[in-house]
Amino acid sequence: MPKRNLYLKSLPVEEAITRFQDALSPYLKAKSEDIEVIRALDRITSEAVYARCSSPLYNCAAMDGIAVISDRTRGASETAPLTLKEPDFVAVDTGDPIRPPYDAVIMAEDILETVEDNAVTIRFAASPWQHVRPVGEDIVSGEMILPGGHQIRPVDIGVLLSGGITRLSVYIRPSVAVIPTGTEMIEPGEEMVEGSIIESNSRMLEALVRHSGGEPERFSPVPDEYERLKSTLQDVTGRFDMALIIAGTSAGRDDYTASILRELGNVVVHGVNIKPGKPVILAVVNGKPVIGVPGYPVSAYLAYETFAAPVLSRLSRSPAHDMPIVKATLTRKLVSSLKHREYVRVKIGQVGGRLVASPLARGAGAAMSLVRADGFCIIGQDEEGVHSGVSVDVLLCRRLSDLQRTVVSVGSHDLILDVLSDLMPRLSTGSYLSSTHVGSMGGLLALKNGESHIAPVHLLDEDTGEYNIPVLKKLFTGKKMALIKGVGRVQGLIVQKGNPLNIGGLEDLTKCRYINRQRGAGTRLLFDSKLKVMGIPFADIPGYEREAATHMAVAAAVKNADADAGLGIFSAAKAMELDFIPVGEEEYDFAIPAEFLKLSHIQDFIKALQSAEFLKNLKALGGYAFDCCGEIIPVDC
Amino acid sequence: MPKRNLYLKSLPVEEAITRFQDALSPYLKAKSEDIEVIRALDRITSEAVYARCSSPLYNCAAMDGIAVISDRTRGASETAPLTLKEPDFVAVDTGDPIRPPYDAVIMAEDILETVEDNAVTIRFAASPWQHVRPVGEDIVSGEMILPGGHQIRPVDIGVLLSGGITRLSVYIRPSVAVIPTGTEMIEPGEEMVEGSIIESNSRMLEALVRHSGGEPERFSPVPDEYERLKSTLQDVTGRFDMALIIAGTSAGRDDYTASILRELGNVVVHGVNIKPGKPVILAVVNGKPVIGVPGYPVSAYLAYETFAAPVLSRLSRSPAHDMPIVKATLTRKLVSSLKHREYVRVKIGQVGGRLVASPLARGAGAAMSLVRADGFCIIGQDEEGVHSGVSVDVLLCRRLSDLQRTVVSVGSHDLILDVLSDLMPRLSTGSYLSSTHVGSMGGLLALKNGESHIAPVHLLDEDTGEYNIPVLKKLFTGKKMALIKGVGRVQGLIVQKGNPLNIGGLEDLTKCRYINRQRGAGTRLLFDSKLKVMGIPFADIPGYEREAATHMAVAAAVKNADADAGLGIFSAAKAMELDFIPVGEEEYDFAIPAEFLKLSHIQDFIKALQSAEFLKNLKALGGYAFDCCGEIIPVDC
Repeated sequence: MPKRNLYLKSLPVEEAITRFQDALSPYLKAKSEDIEVIRALDRITSEAVYARCSSPLYNCAAMDGIAVISDRTRGASETAPLTLKEPDFVAVDTGDPIRPPYDAVIMAEDILETVEDNAVTIRFAASPWQHVRPVGEDIVSGEMILPGGHQIRPVDIGVLLSGGITRLSVYIRPSVAVIPTGTEMIEPGEEMVEGSIIESNSRMLEALVRHSGGEPERFSPVPDEYERLKSTLQDVTGRFDMALIIAGTSAGRDDYTASILRELGNVVVHGVNIKPGKPVILAVVNGKPVIGVPGYPVSAYLAYETFAAPVLSRLSRSPAHDMPIVKATLTRKLVSSLKHREYVRVKIGQVGGRLVASPLARGAGAAMSLVRADGFCIIGQDEEGVHSGVSVDVLLCRRLSDLQRTVVSVGSHDLILDVLSDLMPRLSTGSYLSSTHVGSMGGLLALKNGESHIAPVHLLDEDTGEYNIPVLKKLFTGKKMALIKGVGRVQGLIVQKGNPLNIGGLEDLTKCRYINRQRGAGTRLLFDSKLKVMGIPFADIPGYEREAATHMAVAAAVKNADADAGLGIFSAAKAMELDFIPVGEEEYDFAIPAEFLKLSHIQDFIKALQSAEFLKNLKALGGYAFDCCGEIIPVDC
Repeated sequence: MPKRNLYLKSLPVEEAITRFQDALSPYLKAKSEDIEVIRALDRITSEAVYARCSSPLYNCAAMDGIAVISDRTRGASETAPLTLKEPDFVAVDTGDPIRPPYDAVIMAEDILETVEDNAVTIRFAASPWQHVRPVGEDIVSGEMILPGGHQIRPVDIGVLLSGGITRLSVYIRPSVAVIPTGTEMIEPGEEMVEGSIIESNSRMLEALVRHSGGEPERFSPVPDEYERLKSTLQDVTGRFDMALIIAGTSAGRDDYTASILRELGNVVVHGVNIKPGKPVILAVVNGKPVIGVPGYPVSAYLAYETFAAPVLSRLSRSPAHDMPIVKATLTRKLVSSLKHREYVRVKIGQVGGRLVASPLARGAGAAMSLVRADGFCIIGQDEEGVHSGVSVDVLLCRRLSDLQRTVVSVGSHDLILDVLSDLMPRLSTGSYLSSTHVGSMGGLLALKNGESHIAPVHLLDEDTGEYNIPVLKKLFTGKKMALIKGVGRVQGLIVQKGNPLNIGGLEDLTKCRYINRQRGAGTRLLFDSKLKVMGIPFADIPGYEREAATHMAVAAAVKNADADAGLGIFSAAKAMELDFIPVGEEEYDFAIPAEFLKLSHIQDFIKALQSAEFLKNLKALGGYAFDCCGEIIPVDC
């Protein structure tokens, strides 16, 4: 066994930030450059900008009409109109210069009549300077147009140019080297073999740097060779304003990077009490900030946002893009350790006037949960967790206005939910579907707790043989509920292509490796119910305890030959090109409190269910019946 | 006189939008293109994206440690540790593949001891699949990663690449031709002569198009020649997805553009009941939207936001960047006509817990007020105005969090306010100064009404000869107030360089053209008081009625030879390179309710007043005394 440095020295988040900022403060000076105004959109002024000329540049007509000498219009009135002859007036358009002896403009609308080509009759005397825009009315030469530290907007560009400014001084966009490392890394699109990992973190970081106002340069993955890594780091800390080096996720690899950084400069922090993101390295080399970013995508993201973004913001002087904080009610208890501050990804929904936050997968490797997240719930290092139902602060990473038009679905998983979430925004104008997969029973519980709008369910009542309605009546006694009809679907055993073990039905599962669904999933309940009817004890099924959270996860395990069979839907087997042995048909519907039916985004959801595009998609997925998609069945419980 | 089409046919805003959208609907199809994922930041997916491979690609270690065969670890416990020999285990790092016969990982921390190089002792049995990330744990091949219509974020790029996607389909950025017109237009930086206008609107529109997700191409100004304009429009409606043509501001010029558009296609709307922005033209040529944008900068901005941005958003499918709406108390009565919906630019401040909105200059040519605006107060076409003190909806165009850290100054004008607004954000971390110039008396009234934090004033008490404190005591009886000491400054007559009229003092003003300050300005009060003492009737001063709102505006009028003299401060004369005849010294201070002194942004304001940088700036401006900048004088009224 190689020896490992198992315990990183770990610091609280705030202390790590302070130490890093202190170590950097002699070096962190924002540099500026001179650029053209017409290329300055979104840049930050590094000093105040003063107008070089006035606007308007000269006295000019504010209206279309005639320029007059005000003195010569005295006495004109409705009852005593006055006729002016050229050159006592001259026709002007808006913006035309008004030169002496003219000192006022009469609007075209106020000219009573044009007597002949060179004479007009007016009905009002003109006061001096009426309808004349004096030189500098808008901008006076020498006046400050923009202060320093101002992010340039489209309107600023227009006014700078009008004020005679063609170039100005702005803070540079700091250059940031983004260096992935690891011999096992392959570039996206390269052939994949077991053991290889698609290098994607650097591309995420590159994009994050762009959003922070930096100019990233992404390197090809550097193999784990001490000298190559060292010379790369030496090179970039000379040429760039900052470097992000993506270390491996292992303690061994971190140490490797840390010891090179220690050789080249000062490792200020190695290990922070943050989850995900703990093995981050904060170093200063050549006076430049170098951040060792952990290799798990969620850790990489949080390490960037927590430690890199603030430093980049100081270098670029671009405003930190603060995520807004909202109060939301937590739907599940969260337990967290006193060892770290934890960032828990959550889905946010607005249900019945309040915001609810449902925790997502917490693993550092669960990048999809980062894509699916609407925000982060932060559990401080001094907290052991948060109870369900408590109001928590959530850092939003999606627009609140979008969340307010989102149908929150919590319940059973089916591939059609993806299809619907794709269709809804396109068929409506700005309604969305957000779904969390916790199984049918979990879904109904969430619905009962006011944490969702709809619950996708497929629950058989063993007494009546009826789907979904009996369980609603049992759970929601006294409430007005409804069922939005979904699809009929076939459940069956997903098995290897060609069915090599010759599995014919549930009775054959005792002789093969099964993969189950999680407790509370309708498919698990179906499986248990079928086993009971057939008199097969659960313990006789090898792998009964092994759980997967979705139909696709079951299919993936079979596809990968980690399991021989799992119960699931036809479309999952088809998507993975596996064989399928039908076990039974069931009804997959959406339970909803009747009061929500009137919501416009629920109406959009129903429209999507009834749409021709949805049916086309169902046919392509295969294994669905769709006679009554989107029908509403009132259920008075 | 040339004949004019004085009355455009004018439509209510909503009707104009509907007519335009209806005329466009057969043509407005968002096009898509195939691009690399690594270049897709901020683009919008045109269809759902499904994973091409799973992540992880294979079962792999979730921890550093050893891979084991779970069966062979049975029975191990703290009291009965078990020794495993290779090949019953193999060392693994996080991410390493777990291949059969291995089916579980034991963390390095849980290994009791390494007996020899090829043997370890464990103290816990391993359950099957523990600390193993199964294939597809994060992303399952075939699973939807992103729905259509989704704006791509940094995290999405990472996950797309991990899911085996290297290219994807996104909506194009629509190409938009931006065409300025007008023979009098010159390019920024070109030599300016009377009658020429710096063409800046196209650059503002170009930037607005970029912010809306379009790809602008800006043309050089096209002279007002019928055939050239026509051929340009024919050309661009063939090559671009949309065109913005900046017509002149005159009715004549609009008609010119409109009649060309009528010849080439369909002018749907010419003239809308919106102020500013009325002469907008909405047309469809070759199936492409063409918008005739009025030439005044504020009109151009509002015409773009109201009519062009929504169409571009439909073409690009990029989310409309809705401005947030806040409630604010209006500080001044606004009168508006039933002829139009009016967008009034306002400054927003948070004073004593409520947001207050102070209207800015309303002219269509007042581009600086667009730069200075924090938002727009909309007065509907069915409203004749809004009373002072009423709570109104304001469309914010600046971040609320910035506004909450802004010192609101309403009162007398001095060039040092610009200097302070530049210094404050740089000397503090994110405090700002916003100032509106309404004269000393207007400032004190605003302070009394709770519409501002500070009022810059220079008001002499004729009885005592004392500055500022007596008037505070009169106006704020019973309140605890304070004076933040500002600067001593010299007021005097600003006259032509070389003083050609040989003006020696106020007594000489009867023989020259004077330019006055507005009613309520301290400088106006000083002037009146001096005239009274000297026994000069106001009517004897030619130009007494002509008002300018700032010292710089007075200096600009003198510089332009529109006036021979005006009372103002030395720094304004110096900035414009004019001569100055001192008339008297005065104290320019900041009145403040004592309770505001503790606010952190007020403290930052005082620090800026006391800073070395401020004194340096004062010296450069000239004409100031600065013995007690930032001193606090309590004034119990």
